[in-house]
Amino acid sequence: MLPNPSGDNVGGLLNAPLGNLTELVIAGAALSAGEYALVKGSIAGAIVTNTLFMLGSSFFLGGLKHHIQEYNRATARLDSALLFLAAIALVSPSAIAKADLVPGAVLSQKLSISLAVLLVAGYGLGLLFSLKTHREIFAGAEHAKASEPAWPIGLALFTLAAVTVLVALVSEIFVESVQKAAETFGMSEAFVGFIVVALVGGAAEMAVAFSAARKNRLDLSVGIALGSASQIALFVGPALVFLSYVIGPMPMDLQFWPGAVVMVFVATLIAAFITSSGRSAWFVGVLLLLVYAVFAITLYLWPPQPQ
Amino acid sequence: MLPNPSGDNVGGLLNAPLGNLTELVIAGAALSAGEYALVKGSIAGAIVTNTLFMLGSSFFLGGLKHHIQEYNRATARLDSALLFLAAIALVSPSAIAKADLVPGAVLSQKLSISLAVLLVAGYGLGLLFSLKTHREIFAGAEHAKASEPAWPIGLALFTLAAVTVLVALVSEIFVESVQKAAETFGMSEAFVGFIVVALVGGAAEMAVAFSAARKNRLDLSVGIALGSASQIALFVGPALVFLSYVIGPMPMDLQFWPGAVVMVFVATLIAAFITSSGRSAWFVGVLLLLVYAVFAITLYLWPPQPQ
Amino acid sequence: MLPNPSGDNVGGLLNAPLGNLTELVIAGAALSAGEYALVKGSIAGAIVTNTLFMLGSSFFLGGLKHHIQEYNRATARLDSALLFLAAIALVSPSAIAKADLVPGAVLSQKLSISLAVLLVAGYGLGLLFSLKTHREIFAGAEHAKASEPAWPIGLALFTLAAVTVLVALVSEIFVESVQKAAETFGMSEAFVGFIVVALVGGAAEMAVAFSAARKNRLDLSVGIALGSASQIALFVGPALVFLSYVIGPMPMDLQFWPGAVVMVFVATLIAAFITSSGRSAWFVGVLLLLVYAVFAITLYLWPPQPQ
Repeated sequence: MLPNPSGDNVGGLLNAPLGNLTELVIAGAALSAGEYALVKGSIAGAIVTNTLFMLGSSFFLGGLKHHIQEYNRATARLDSALLFLAAIALVSPSAIAKADLVPGAVLSQKLSISLAVLLVAGYGLGLLFSLKTHREIFAGAEHAKASEPAWPIGLALFTLAAVTVLVALVSEIFVESVQKAAETFGMSEAFVGFIVVALVGGAAEMAVAFSAARKNRLDLSVGIALGSASQIALFVGPALVFLSYVIGPMPMDLQFWPGAVVMVFVATLIAAFITSSGRSAWFVGVLLLLVYAVFAITLYLWPPQPQ
Repeated sequence: MLPNPSGDNVGGLLNAPLGNLTELVIAGAALSAGEYALVKGSIAGAIVTNTLFMLGSSFFLGGLKHHIQEYNRATARLDSALLFLAAIALVSPSAIAKADLVPGAVLSQKLSISLAVLLVAGYGLGLLFSLKTHREIFAGAEHAKASEPAWPIGLALFTLAAVTVLVALVSEIFVESVQKAAETFGMSEAFVGFIVVALVGGAAEMAVAFSAARKNRLDLSVGIALGSASQIALFVGPALVFLSYVIGPMPMDLQFWPGAVVMVFVATLIAAFITSSGRSAWFVGVLLLLVYAVFAITLYLWPPQPQ
Repeated sequence: MLPNPSGDNVGGLLNAPLGNLTELVIAGAALSAGEYALVKGSIAGAIVTNTLFMLGSSFFLGGLKHHIQEYNRATARLDSALLFLAAIALVSPSAIAKADLVPGAVLSQKLSISLAVLLVAGYGLGLLFSLKTHREIFAGAEHAKASEPAWPIGLALFTLAAVTVLVALVSEIFVESVQKAAETFGMSEAFVGFIVVALVGGAAEMAVAFSAARKNRLDLSVGIALGSASQIALFVGPALVFLSYVIGPMPMDLQFWPGAVVMVFVATLIAAFITSSGRSAWFVGVLLLLVYAVFAITLYLWPPQPQ
């Protein structure tokens, strides 16, 4: 996530590329090792963690300092809509088809490739919309003026680089022996992939988002959180599907386990509902964090059976 | 769909009767032949196609010409709410009851008749609300003034009549040998019933809706798309259930296959979310069309097993 | 439910304690008898009945007298959000975990206790938010001024007390022989627990809510209906889980049958959608009542199999 020195929020969609680098490093390593369950878990986990934890903590931390915070809801609406598209693409195959899903089957791969193309098309057109044809709608709200002191880009970049390197090193351990790591910490594989990896992988972005919220620049926080989530859903995920044809032992499909789809779907619904007002207070953040806690506790105490 | 010469949008609910004539012709023929799977498929397909494809294309085509378009969201809210009621009535039996559903059983018929009565009651009261007691809320937005040149009713009626006759002739082929048509075009029965029939059957309405969107009369487009969808869900569907007692070989129930219910439910949710702002741009249309493409591709590549 | 003499709506969350007394009496008796299916049914039934029937009837009865009614949507948004949190906590275990749920198992109890703690925390923080830190947002709308004559508290309290005593006596019959009562009236156990108990138990609150709606004090009606529903979901339900460790034969978990979860989820979604405008007319009430009728008819005609 690169803070924009001009103080504008350029749609949130372009904010996240560097922040999602760690996601890509972990997922790429897992992909070439054929650990598709881990790859998918970290994709879904990053979407849910950004939408609920990063957004919720931003609202909460910002709300502790500022009574009511306002932000441009156009950005939030666009990202929520894109996330909803992704959630539908994930739920569609298993919900519509009566036939049992056979992972790795030819039809499943054809469908996953088609859906991935649609998602990337949506992402690209969303960029065109928010950065070019309707740019003015996505400008930051009044209070986030450029008169504020410029963001310390150097510090942000350094943090980002340091964490990325750290995660790249740690990701080896994750990929080589998730089971072992899970045993060591007494955590289920689902909990590690969904919660721990997503929290560690998003640490740098979160630092920037939380700091922006404290400085009453909630446009930036919302843009990072939802922009990063929609980028993972509509760009990173499909890119990994394409990449699996090149570096993976076999093609990866877009079939997620039902629980992951439910969590992505619910997180998206809540984000759309919560951000439709364009205003925030501390309790809004608490609500998002409580939903995240419900998911985390369920995964911790009652993990899905290993596949 | 009869364009209103006075330029007012009379609630969208009355706009659709002639446009849905083709639906009724096809469904009536299929009903007397006892092809209930086809009837139900074309009902659900018409709802989803109107809500996603017709509305989406109107937003897209209008948005290519006009930067931002505004419309009266009262109409959209009413139609979305009615569609939601229908979606709940469809999902309710299979979601609430633990017992396995036995199509054709006495209880299933009693339940379907009861739900059909509720839907028709909702439709009738919706007409009373939008045409009589709260008529003023549903008047068109400022910009769709009567000062615009009158709509060419003659042309619209002619197109409508021509397409209806065409579809009535074609519907014979559909009903008599859907399997054969599907084989010929290499399409699954689900894809033909859900997508092809709905697109052909709605062609005349779509021509009017798209033309209105290009002329920045989005109130009319939204009224046609969502009004037609809710009319099919709350009037045509229940009417076919009643009709099946007269002309069908056995009573038809309102049990849809789960995938159809999911698509209707999701399409309704999206329509409610998208139209809650009362404003539109080209990308809003793209989003609706992408969701429609997700459904169409899934049905094409991975059709539900024949029953 | 204690009407507020000052004419302010204090967040709706504190409005409901006395009104939910009858719920507690019934549930407490059923709890000590170990009839957990009945306890859970009455919790879910009270949430759905308050959200759909009480709110719907208030909108309908108020709308028959007043053309358009306005109310403070901040209260409705808070309560809807809290209800959504509860719905997620209910759906989470069965939707996320792949493993089959074994009621009464140790893991299931641990999860239920954890979720109950989260819900009570959400309830407590919601009170802090609406009564203390952001009290001004939840003040009644302009038209509900204190200049109106004070509410007849005495009458309301008397009605409340009388109905509570009545229900407490009747609840014996319910708990001792629900099957028998069901046979007597020809109703399924699910219908009795979900619809009849909820309607009887909420009678006093409904009298107050309907009367307020007729007097154009819709803030009060919405506050009672949604406030009572969220109190049951976030306070009464979790409290009964804790209580089951003390007075029950074995710990009660928060596992509901899927149909109940679907109804709570759908009712919450509708309440959030409907109340987001802050305005109401008679047809809005009709829609809520029709959805309630769909649920009631389904439960009556096609009850879930006895467990």
